[in-house]
Amino acid sequence: MRIALIGVGMIGGSLLAAWRQAGAVTAATGYDIDPKALSLAAAGGLIDRSATSVAQAAAGAELVLVATPVGSMREVFTQLAPALAADAVLVDVGSTKGDVLDDARATLGVAFARFVPAHPIAGKERPGVEHADARLFAGKRVVLTPTAETSAAALATVEGLFARAGARVERMDAGEHDRIFAAVSHLPHLLSFALVAAIGSEPEAQRKLGYGGAGFRDFTRIAASSPVMWRDICVANRAALGEELRGYRALLDRLQRAVDDGDGATLQQIFELAARLRRQWANPADAR
Amino acid sequence: MRIALIGVGMIGGSLLAAWRQAGAVTAATGYDIDPKALSLAAAGGLIDRSATSVAQAAAGAELVLVATPVGSMREVFTQLAPALAADAVLVDVGSTKGDVLDDARATLGVAFARFVPAHPIAGKERPGVEHADARLFAGKRVVLTPTAETSAAALATVEGLFARAGARVERMDAGEHDRIFAAVSHLPHLLSFALVAAIGSEPEAQRKLGYGGAGFRDFTRIAASSPVMWRDICVANRAALGEELRGYRALLDRLQRAVDDGDGATLQQIFELAARLRRQWANPADAR
Repeated sequence: MRIALIGVGMIGGSLLAAWRQAGAVTAATGYDIDPKALSLAAAGGLIDRSATSVAQAAAGAELVLVATPVGSMREVFTQLAPALAADAVLVDVGSTKGDVLDDARATLGVAFARFVPAHPIAGKERPGVEHADARLFAGKRVVLTPTAETSAAALATVEGLFARAGARVERMDAGEHDRIFAAVSHLPHLLSFALVAAIGSEPEAQRKLGYGGAGFRDFTRIAASSPVMWRDICVANRAALGEELRGYRALLDRLQRAVDDGDGATLQQIFELAARLRRQWANPADAR
Repeated sequence: MRIALIGVGMIGGSLLAAWRQAGAVTAATGYDIDPKALSLAAAGGLIDRSATSVAQAAAGAELVLVATPVGSMREVFTQLAPALAADAVLVDVGSTKGDVLDDARATLGVAFARFVPAHPIAGKERPGVEHADARLFAGKRVVLTPTAETSAAALATVEGLFARAGARVERMDAGEHDRIFAAVSHLPHLLSFALVAAIGSEPEAQRKLGYGGAGFRDFTRIAASSPVMWRDICVANRAALGEELRGYRALLDRLQRAVDDGDGATLQQIFELAARLRRQWANPADAR
């Protein structure tokens, strides 16, 4: 299959590498606004050719994989629309789906039926194609959020490709997707960025950070993620994320009062709910 | 050395196990309010004898290790004071130090000079002596917060014992300790508990939790920690933790406005500060 990769980063690079390993790629062209990403991908044999525009990359491609930050996708789709082959299939790998569908519907014209919105539940905090990993999707879930207009053939093509990357594919409504991931992904990222930024703005920040232990390490691992990618996700999913953040802040208001008052009973009640759920999450067979 | 362990849990058990491996233990007596913890520790050879009271455990001990939740320490010290041998050294392993010092000063009488407040920067989220691990402290830091009244001999004994457990020992003022750990440890724990509790209180909580990925896993690992231990830490360090939480909530107010307004510039600025600091933290040689 002739593939065009728009946005040559860690996620797109990992998926292309997985498809190469699976023998699904006959030729791959890449486009990125950063020429360094293109040279790296070409030098590593990930792409066969570097394009100088989105349209040039898409010309002749049977599959176009859009792996840019979600805030760039409307512009990418706009440039893709006139350049797409008549039967080309499009897929994105953005972490939000409602806004991406809106962008695609507004810009792709007839090609919108061949666009399959996808969100692979896999990642790591180091951005850049140099951190691409063909095994990133093995055993991981990929959520597709097709609409009533999505062509069955395009959907089958994309489902097959994710399966060849080792992923488990499922379908979901885009709105439900965005509400779920606002809670379990976008909010934790925002909170983790916020903790490091808050400590970093305090007096003696470096001295304090020097005492961060294993808890700090794990809690803040995702604060090393790409700021631009997460800016775009937070803006794209602002309705659902804003709601989640509001609910979380209301709970923090309660916790602030409990801390200030030394109200151990309220703290314990909230901590016990969390600990029980988190232990069940890690080990559903665990009856504790 | 004859050692009494008050509070037979993961941390105290790990330290006693490390001292046993180092050959520092001639006899160990344990006391816990949970008889199951005592049977487990006795069955595993960690303690030689189970006591039925704090005072009985302390009788004849050269070193008393207090490893209960910090909220229980005042009561433990009160029971210890009349039972201590005249030259017995005391050490605690609580995560807060100002309140523990206050409790010790108020209750221990002349033995206060032989009390060495300690905080090992090591842990894991599974509580219970069954998760004790003799290597838990290897290469980890231990912060001691002695006062002007602390005896040099007691301090030297405790420093030597932590060194034999493989830890790197340093000293700090108790107030500074509590401010630092409010920021890099107590606040992240509270925030992690709060996220799981917030999602757990929403409609379709289980369905949402089912989509938690690697970011959720790491961010919430510490939400599986002991609710009672962390309740006590939050109450004991409520002044410093309350201040940190207030500052964090002010930043979340800004982030809420930025999310609601789709203000990508503010989000990006905060995320970039965090990502830069977090990457430096993980790899100080990294110039990015």
